[in-house]
Amino acid sequence: MPGSNSEHPTIDDIRAAARRIEPHIHRTPVLTCHAIDEAAGCEVFLKCENLQKVGAFKARGASNAVFSLTDAQADHGVVTHSSGNHAQALAWAAGRRGIPAHIVMPTNAPMVKKKAVLGYGGIVHDCEPTLESRLKICQRVAEETGGTVIPPYDDDRVIAGQGTIALELLGQVPDLDAIVVPVGGGGMIAGIAICAKALSPRLEIIGAEPELVDDAARSRTSGRIEPHTGDPTRTIADGLRTTLGERTFPVIQELVDDIITVPEAAIREGLRLVMERAKLVIEPSAAVGIAAVRSDSLRSKGHRRIGVVLCGGNLDLDALPSLL
Amino acid sequence: MPGSNSEHPTIDDIRAAARRIEPHIHRTPVLTCHAIDEAAGCEVFLKCENLQKVGAFKARGASNAVFSLTDAQADHGVVTHSSGNHAQALAWAAGRRGIPAHIVMPTNAPMVKKKAVLGYGGIVHDCEPTLESRLKICQRVAEETGGTVIPPYDDDRVIAGQGTIALELLGQVPDLDAIVVPVGGGGMIAGIAICAKALSPRLEIIGAEPELVDDAARSRTSGRIEPHTGDPTRTIADGLRTTLGERTFPVIQELVDDIITVPEAAIREGLRLVMERAKLVIEPSAAVGIAAVRSDSLRSKGHRRIGVVLCGGNLDLDALPSLL
Repeated sequence: MPGSNSEHPTIDDIRAAARRIEPHIHRTPVLTCHAIDEAAGCEVFLKCENLQKVGAFKARGASNAVFSLTDAQADHGVVTHSSGNHAQALAWAAGRRGIPAHIVMPTNAPMVKKKAVLGYGGIVHDCEPTLESRLKICQRVAEETGGTVIPPYDDDRVIAGQGTIALELLGQVPDLDAIVVPVGGGGMIAGIAICAKALSPRLEIIGAEPELVDDAARSRTSGRIEPHTGDPTRTIADGLRTTLGERTFPVIQELVDDIITVPEAAIREGLRLVMERAKLVIEPSAAVGIAAVRSDSLRSKGHRRIGVVLCGGNLDLDALPSLL
Repeated sequence: MPGSNSEHPTIDDIRAAARRIEPHIHRTPVLTCHAIDEAAGCEVFLKCENLQKVGAFKARGASNAVFSLTDAQADHGVVTHSSGNHAQALAWAAGRRGIPAHIVMPTNAPMVKKKAVLGYGGIVHDCEPTLESRLKICQRVAEETGGTVIPPYDDDRVIAGQGTIALELLGQVPDLDAIVVPVGGGGMIAGIAICAKALSPRLEIIGAEPELVDDAARSRTSGRIEPHTGDPTRTIADGLRTTLGERTFPVIQELVDDIITVPEAAIREGLRLVMERAKLVIEPSAAVGIAAVRSDSLRSKGHRRIGVVLCGGNLDLDALPSLL
């Protein structure tokens, strides 16, 4: 229900999203790893969105948004500002529909990220590396092209698309006690919480966040969207450096049971654990969920079967030594 | 049929192995990756033995050997000399049966490898870093303990166990034209060839080998087991540094259609491609198969659907910068 201000997407929106994106995305596997079970003290089920199209769950929300457009809307293409996985996902999804994707990226974005967007057929528009410039250029491109702006997380179509992760996971693994979800802007955890609470109300939804960008935990406590208290680039979990949005925060406030913050050392250990023992390439943001299942906060809950969303695998291999 | 000198294991031995090891091993997933399909010019199906127990296909052969023993034999444990994945696999399999595993390892083996064996409950016996010392100590340990020697590849129980890879893969992916298998000692390709040729005779079995240790390709041409022509440690594919064995060579001679050799640069590119795009951690030996599907030799065959065995994922992350 894009356009609605008060009500969040429903399980029906998520089911509709699943049908809409099914021809385009991977039904990602759920893998287990004895060493991770031992480290967590319970059974851990890894939902491998690192193996998703474009290497991240963002393919779900982007494709749901793109394929929700009417033909008349779609003709004008889509627009976003992002230098992360959403940029690649939107370029990819637009390519699947055969429409243009205009991606506004700061001039200081890594060349590898620009190349990835171009590789998926996206059109890159440069902006200054400030939020003001990003918004201004994005607005201008949207006006000039008539394209539809698809935000990275604060959008009901995107939230519904990300919710399909839970729809799949609950069909793949019975009797989960909890799902642990890394939190950046909150689109993924909002969609997952809506889906899981509708299908299995006693299942706990737990956010995982770096201590250095603990805005979601603080927002949940204060009851309003809190800004960062320090430089968000201090965390290696580059996918989680955003604050919550107007559409995602109310869902999180209503449906998420807990948000656990983890130190950088635990994120690094989680990254090494998954790569060395589960043999999966993940990005640091995905390691935040692994750090959470190993934390005392989560272990003290006594859950026996926990799903963890490995949200993405877009790791710069050449930077790996600095991340371990 | 352990003990037989002339006949190799049969499809029935492989089927029996599959039933024997099924409670212990993973039925590994088959994954696909658009970027690898593009690089190969055909559809590539990745058989993910990097996600196998102990991180390598060796778990299959080792567990088939261990669970083939009579109780009287098993009481005395098992013995091998290896510093590679077979050592870990045998320690793990023996642990599953609750019997001792004596692993003879050279004093200069990396501490991480010794620790892995110890972690699976194996008993490490030091030897000098020469083949002579390895064989002598292995023989002595076997005599003193009464344990059964389980060689890493030149053993019919091991060959039959590795053949279960093909049994699974052919059930998971219909209509394959070829299977590409990295070749070291030849246990894996021998087992796979026996299975595949029995079930689907027109399916090509293709070995993949580093140019720097091309003993299998030369042996196939000359008709006898050829030694190395240079220092085998020059290749980064450390799992493929052995020569063929008396049990594996005749099977390869009879049933393998081709052996493709690949340069080190292509192995490094394959490693990066799989980690960056398929998001899987593999060891360099597994990248040899990816290098082969990208080679002109293989592309010129015009196959449309190729299975590639990603044989293992035991990569030293700290050494990764030197491998890319």
